Amino acid sequence: MAFDYEKDPAAIYAKSFQIIRSESAESLAQIPESVEPLAVRLMHAVGMTDLVPDLRFSTRCMAAGIAAIQQGNPILVDTQMVAGGITRRFLSVDHGGAGNDVLVTLNDPLVPHLAAEIGTTRTAAAMELWRPHLDGAVVAIGNAPTALFRLLEMIRDGESKPALVLGFPVGFVGAAESKQCLVDEADALDLDYVALLGRRGGTPLASAAVNALSIAAL
Amino acid sequence: MAFDYEKDPAAIYAKSFQIIRSESAESLAQIPESVEPLAVRLMHAVGMTDLVPDLRFSTRCMAAGIAAIQQGNPILVDTQMVAGGITRRFLSVDHGGAGNDVLVTLNDPLVPHLAAEIGTTRTAAAMELWRPHLDGAVVAIGNAPTALFRLLEMIRDGESKPALVLGFPVGFVGAAESKQCLVDEADALDLDYVALLGRRGGTPLASAAVNALSIAAL
Repeated sequence: MAFDYEKDPAAIYAKSFQIIRSESAESLAQIPESVEPLAVRLMHAVGMTDLVPDLRFSTRCMAAGIAAIQQGNPILVDTQMVAGGITRRFLSVDHGGAGNDVLVTLNDPLVPHLAAEIGTTRTAAAMELWRPHLDGAVVAIGNAPTALFRLLEMIRDGESKPALVLGFPVGFVGAAESKQCLVDEADALDLDYVALLGRRGGTPLASAAVNALSIAAL
Repeated sequence: MAFDYEKDPAAIYAKSFQIIRSESAESLAQIPESVEPLAVRLMHAVGMTDLVPDLRFSTRCMAAGIAAIQQGNPILVDTQMVAGGITRRFLSVDHGGAGNDVLVTLNDPLVPHLAAEIGTTRTAAAMELWRPHLDGAVVAIGNAPTALFRLLEMIRDGESKPALVLGFPVGFVGAAESKQCLVDEADALDLDYVALLGRRGGTPLASAAVNALSIAAL
């Protein structure tokens, strides 16, 4: 016995995007055309059409991210879940991509020691291992506010700058604050960024932002 | 230069749960005590305290999931992202867990062929490869509505039953319908389940539900 439901992936995709564009038409009209595909993909990832009012981004965010991906620069992510949500097909040289590496340092055996030594979360300690890879990278943070705060501190202290910071920490303690900090400090640090203000965030949003850029970079 | 933010993981955790319990106190009071830790963990995963009114579950859902995990039954998940969000430490024999396997069949080389043959999504086709593992398993679906629909069809057609279905498909086409179908059919199929009605869902919720059960099973 079969239930009646849409099974065609292309139809599901098209209808989803149609619903998102229709329900969020008013808010989408307020943002630059270039950012629209990314905004739509974020809403697609979480089943919510009210994200745009909380979305913040630098003027050159899309160009910065697309160039970094096209140049084959690494994509640094804070958790294995964000890495798992990145569609490698869009990055694969075989499919027209630049073959970018996706790096997660959280599970490096050094991290627990570093966290204890510095007195911070493991996620923030894992940022230390990003240092050699940061220059020109696309950074996507979908989990820990402490990771985003620590990244901003490293950059303020003179560390090499990523091409783009995708800021999507989620939760109740520090998430809203860390994203507001990114937005507030971006000019002074000369950083390109995309962030979702407030408590909402998470790995599907961080992955979706990377995927939107990868598709735009093809 | 350092920003001022909470860096102690235990403090972040405690404060987050305190905020969640405080903001959702009224809705939490409406659900059984046994389900409360799972509900809190779901809200923690997505930074939203308004989930409980959309939460549906069978009377014995916690007992069913906890027993399955304690018996070492497999955990079947629809995507690598859900697997990535499952805290293996809680399942590890070294940490008091039952050493459950976490299985994802989506990336099996057979899947694209099966999808074309059956005429469905890859995610739903991947369900075919669950058949030998379904009996008594904990199933967590955090992405595709078609996977949940297909699972329910397989069970209705006589396939072995999982101990518990965690239904968290997300999105605009079929997500709400697939979860409503799970709730509507559960009695007839004699299925234990937890599901979040509506469009909201996603991998962090599916992983968080598994983690809540794993912790309760320790």
